[in-house]
Amino acid sequence: MTITSVKRTHNFSAGPAALPLEVLEKAQRELVDFQSAGMSVMEMSHRSKEFSGVIESAEARARRLLNISDEYAVLFLQGGASLQFSMIPMNLCLPGKSVDVVNTGSWTKKAIKELNKIGESNIIASSEDKNFSYIPSLDQLNFNADASYSYITSNNTIAGTQWKEFPKTPTPLVADMSSDIVSRKINVNDFGIIFAGAQKNIGPSGVTLVIIRKDLLERADAALPTMLQYRTHVDNKSLYNTPPTFGIYMIDLVFEWLEAKGGLDAIEAINIQKAKRLYDAFDGEFYICPVAEGSRSDMNVVFRIQNNEELEAQFVKEATAAGLSGLKGHRSVGGLRASIYNACPEESVDALISFMKDFESRNR
Amino acid sequence: MTITSVKRTHNFSAGPAALPLEVLEKAQRELVDFQSAGMSVMEMSHRSKEFSGVIESAEARARRLLNISDEYAVLFLQGGASLQFSMIPMNLCLPGKSVDVVNTGSWTKKAIKELNKIGESNIIASSEDKNFSYIPSLDQLNFNADASYSYITSNNTIAGTQWKEFPKTPTPLVADMSSDIVSRKINVNDFGIIFAGAQKNIGPSGVTLVIIRKDLLERADAALPTMLQYRTHVDNKSLYNTPPTFGIYMIDLVFEWLEAKGGLDAIEAINIQKAKRLYDAFDGEFYICPVAEGSRSDMNVVFRIQNNEELEAQFVKEATAAGLSGLKGHRSVGGLRASIYNACPEESVDALISFMKDFESRNR
Repeated sequence: MTITSVKRTHNFSAGPAALPLEVLEKAQRELVDFQSAGMSVMEMSHRSKEFSGVIESAEARARRLLNISDEYAVLFLQGGASLQFSMIPMNLCLPGKSVDVVNTGSWTKKAIKELNKIGESNIIASSEDKNFSYIPSLDQLNFNADASYSYITSNNTIAGTQWKEFPKTPTPLVADMSSDIVSRKINVNDFGIIFAGAQKNIGPSGVTLVIIRKDLLERADAALPTMLQYRTHVDNKSLYNTPPTFGIYMIDLVFEWLEAKGGLDAIEAINIQKAKRLYDAFDGEFYICPVAEGSRSDMNVVFRIQNNEELEAQFVKEATAAGLSGLKGHRSVGGLRASIYNACPEESVDALISFMKDFESRNR
Repeated sequence: MTITSVKRTHNFSAGPAALPLEVLEKAQRELVDFQSAGMSVMEMSHRSKEFSGVIESAEARARRLLNISDEYAVLFLQGGASLQFSMIPMNLCLPGKSVDVVNTGSWTKKAIKELNKIGESNIIASSEDKNFSYIPSLDQLNFNADASYSYITSNNTIAGTQWKEFPKTPTPLVADMSSDIVSRKINVNDFGIIFAGAQKNIGPSGVTLVIIRKDLLERADAALPTMLQYRTHVDNKSLYNTPPTFGIYMIDLVFEWLEAKGGLDAIEAINIQKAKRLYDAFDGEFYICPVAEGSRSDMNVVFRIQNNEELEAQFVKEATAAGLSGLKGHRSVGGLRASIYNACPEESVDALISFMKDFESRNR
């Protein structure tokens, strides 16, 4: 069978999102026969020697990339961030102690809704007053020492904001990093739990990466459903039940690609440059960025065209025809959005900027 | 890039298990560029036109294959059967009403353990007295009219037993069909819920197929975590959050293959023949089948060699060297097991029988 090289669309989808072409090509080569085993990685027992190698490699790469110490467990779970919204309070809420939350957007609100079914939230700050267009400044945050834990969303895909610095909290800090995990350096030791759906920066949808400080495992009531206790998955190294094996294999390939690229130092520098070039292309008259400077996401670049919905629809239509896809803003807020995760190549950002200039010259 | 044809191992893994070679080859061809979209199916928004086509096709094929009426919803969820063990009682238990369970093996026991955390189980029959080597006969089952629901495991991967006929129950019958879904004709109308992890007969691990009678949706308390309510997923057609898109795509391909093969009539006939040939190869002296006739699974053929563990270990070792993999019995029971799901070709069964004869002649 001959596979000819394909024309790649410039993919700005918010997630599931672009994956590195090299990763896809490697997965394609190995798809029918993995490591000369005479079968696909999808057809192997999750307890086979070959798959053990895959999941151990994925965990080891996560630990190297993020510099994760032995005090933390690394898990590959199912159910996405949406299931974490429930698992976290189920496992971490202490009797009579509420949870400090900084509300920075739609995903935080969903997390609060689920948290309130199980425990009590205490919104210590919110940017909802200005349409979630900024991240509250650290010096205005008063975290409570007697909270169960503290909760934030590190990057807000819909609002296009991102925490540039993380607070030091008196209680374990839990962060939803679904949309900026492994896009920049972080200090894992500042967190109690970091979790991320895979489908933006680390692989296909259907796997959730969870990094959890091991001392927190003991908080959960053993009467909780077995699958919803983190300790189950830590005790069984993510193999309590059959994990999403192909997704974990893809994550291992993405992490391999990231390590070859130079790790988080290198990708962070590239990501900052990619985002800066895009933000610099907004003149504030034709293209308007609604997000406060200092809070702008390097992953999801949100913008408007003169707040003109018709022109925006025209932009999306023409961009799609020109091979630039996924630029429509989230259905809940409208406008435009370019998601430029790790695997979005610099050439795609260049192509977008060229298209934007051309579109402006024709519609100004 | 040229991909040469590969040597396939005869794969008897209990799951994740063999997939049809044609399906893997199609997935391989399309992996980098799906439907000339310039991207992989893994890189697409789950709300894109292309992926909507995939998930709608997978559901339509499931409905055609299993003859599912509009009274039932078809869902693609995450978390495997293990999460269903908790979701089912969370959603279906009625106040003060216990659940009738027929206990036929390890997976039923796990389901009972999770059920007992939420409601109350009433074991109306069990085959544990004889090591789960049989399915209780229908005329000995006394289901209660005032139970919340009734629960069975249709095929027991570890014990190697399978229900050949299903009971008519006075309350909704819930069946774990993880290891024999779409392997034979069933009457969906006899069930309240059918659920199945994908990794045996329908696709890669990481997707759970759930078929639920819609009137049951209203039992669940709206205060349950949103992700753990079936109604959430029915209301959102499995797109409440990002589903495991690649796994659903693979399921669509497997269903396509199954329809081309002639559907469940055709595959059932093949499966019965495959299993019969294997069971006929057991003479009861050298190769012993511990499972009662009439209860023997057409999917997981469990056997022993003179109850001699050393000889069994030797069998597995030599079989593996001869290109027959996955024949070791489940770690909890030992012995030998050949899992011969839909995608296990008849040639693999022939190869196993030849090997068995040769091994017997050398070790008798």
